[in-house]
Amino acid sequence: MSQHKSEENRLNDIKKYDIVVKRLQERGVELKDIAELTLGLQRQYLPNLEYEDALEHVKKVIMKREVQNAALTGIELDCLAEKGLLSEPLSSMLLNDYGLYGVDEVLALAIVNVYGSIGFTNFGYIDKLKPGIIGEIDKKGKEEGKCHTFLDDIIGAIAAAAASSIAHRFAE
Amino acid sequence: MSQHKSEENRLNDIKKYDIVVKRLQERGVELKDIAELTLGLQRQYLPNLEYEDALEHVKKVIMKREVQNAALTGIELDCLAEKGLLSEPLSSMLLNDYGLYGVDEVLALAIVNVYGSIGFTNFGYIDKLKPGIIGEIDKKGKEEGKCHTFLDDIIGAIAAAAASSIAHRFAE
Amino acid sequence: MSQHKSEENRLNDIKKYDIVVKRLQERGVELKDIAELTLGLQRQYLPNLEYEDALEHVKKVIMKREVQNAALTGIELDCLAEKGLLSEPLSSMLLNDYGLYGVDEVLALAIVNVYGSIGFTNFGYIDKLKPGIIGEIDKKGKEEGKCHTFLDDIIGAIAAAAASSIAHRFAE
Amino acid sequence: MSQHKSEENRLNDIKKYDIVVKRLQERGVELKDIAELTLGLQRQYLPNLEYEDALEHVKKVIMKREVQNAALTGIELDCLAEKGLLSEPLSSMLLNDYGLYGVDEVLALAIVNVYGSIGFTNFGYIDKLKPGIIGEIDKKGKEEGKCHTFLDDIIGAIAAAAASSIAHRFAE
Repeated sequence: MSQHKSEENRLNDIKKYDIVVKRLQERGVELKDIAELTLGLQRQYLPNLEYEDALEHVKKVIMKREVQNAALTGIELDCLAEKGLLSEPLSSMLLNDYGLYGVDEVLALAIVNVYGSIGFTNFGYIDKLKPGIIGEIDKKGKEEGKCHTFLDDIIGAIAAAAASSIAHRFAE
Repeated sequence: MSQHKSEENRLNDIKKYDIVVKRLQERGVELKDIAELTLGLQRQYLPNLEYEDALEHVKKVIMKREVQNAALTGIELDCLAEKGLLSEPLSSMLLNDYGLYGVDEVLALAIVNVYGSIGFTNFGYIDKLKPGIIGEIDKKGKEEGKCHTFLDDIIGAIAAAAASSIAHRFAE
Repeated sequence: MSQHKSEENRLNDIKKYDIVVKRLQERGVELKDIAELTLGLQRQYLPNLEYEDALEHVKKVIMKREVQNAALTGIELDCLAEKGLLSEPLSSMLLNDYGLYGVDEVLALAIVNVYGSIGFTNFGYIDKLKPGIIGEIDKKGKEEGKCHTFLDDIIGAIAAAAASSIAHRFAE
Repeated sequence: MSQHKSEENRLNDIKKYDIVVKRLQERGVELKDIAELTLGLQRQYLPNLEYEDALEHVKKVIMKREVQNAALTGIELDCLAEKGLLSEPLSSMLLNDYGLYGVDEVLALAIVNVYGSIGFTNFGYIDKLKPGIIGEIDKKGKEEGKCHTFLDDIIGAIAAAAASSIAHRFAE
């Protein structure tokens, strides 16, 4: 079969990668913040792991379509909630980061899954302890009119998936 | 511990149940349409299964919070796409029911999971063959300005979860 | 339809519940150990939560078929590994609790899912920090000829699912 | 960081690939049978898809660690059931392919997930209609002393994952 579509898809992935990175920045998150989370997760297992390795794997994760689509959808919902464009009861659930909502974790899981089930643990850990950028994002999300219900889970999931990707590459 | 919260939660579930049913109706789906799908899925295993049994289990599924939240989120995204309120590339992916989007299946899986892994098979089958209301919804979704990207998966997932619920109750 | 099967299924669930509890005991785990984990997970959100509440929800989780079947399968694999009845490379992966194996997390996820996606976070947290019985089980599993590859994940998943069940009941 | 571990891991994956292929053969399944399933799933979308493309993607799927480990675990459980080495009630559930067991679908899902959520539909469809080798395996599994409870789900999941892999590569 022709490789034509394949090439087109690849270009499309790069375009979407750029959009995801830009959206994350607009919401206050830089890739280096996510790489720091990944580094924190893997350093106990791989003491020689460097920041550049972590960043490279974060970028690799965001090149995945499943990740791009989940991230774009979650960030969009956060933004729509802030703009008052969601109907009730969805609007209130998102603006209050309702603990039983669950769809944020569902999207996060779809992201983590990209490098397999070993990432669940890292995601849960980071989501509960809220280190670095996750804690900042979570705190800002509690301000009036702000909504980070999906954002913190998406970031945590990308960091956890990158940690899995590293583990798959270097672990014994 | 006090049962106070528990009672409040229960009332909240009923309120959300009513909203989900209303949203489905506004999008052209009646509970009886979903019950027909469930009946079709289970009749080969339980020839004496009656329509009322199927409908009862569909209602039970929609009383679950995980299902309500996934359904409300998916339907909202469909509606926002129709109103032109989503940014690109999300807008185009939803309006064209892009096959590699994947978030629709992720939400569907969260719904199916409510009655366990045995529902995956039924969901996949129904999603591929598009019997009854699924086929109608899918066809209407292809009209200019219409978006049923999430709706058909949500309906299929509720029908599959109800089939699982029935299987768990009656199967040997 | 007749409620006959339904009654039979119920009795069968109780029988399997007893077997799961017995297997856990044979492997060094009491339900009270799991309830302690659940209590630890939920106390920060529900300071008045009592030990009896936690234990009740742990029991409720183990009454679920999906949980029973995943638990019985995982514990069986641990035991077969100890007895040298597994072929390679599965035997070595289990006896060494190989970090990239992943099937232990997959079964754990099936257990956690029983009370929805909000449990992922608790599972990951507990699986990483290894409080109480999880730490003990993990340590014993490192002894020559011992295998707890599935057991610690199963226990953590049951505790996390029970925490979700409590959250669904009492949370605002 | 050194690429040493990375290279070692790669060799290990190839070794496990060979073992998985051999186990499948011993259980009566050739890669070409799985490729036929994949071809059947994708032909309606990609009429020019050739058998060699399908086979190549089946091989790619089986090179994934998550897939290898799930496949090895499931096939082992089938074999142990046939040899009478499983304790009750697990033994009876597997030998009778108990419909509410669910762990077979859980492992299948872990396999399908390797190429994202778009594979669920294909898995469910194939698992329900049982085309080609799936039907044969299912039928043989009903013979006295035979157990194919995991095998048919594993094959269906590999075929569905390969179809997803093709869709991700060639679809518009």
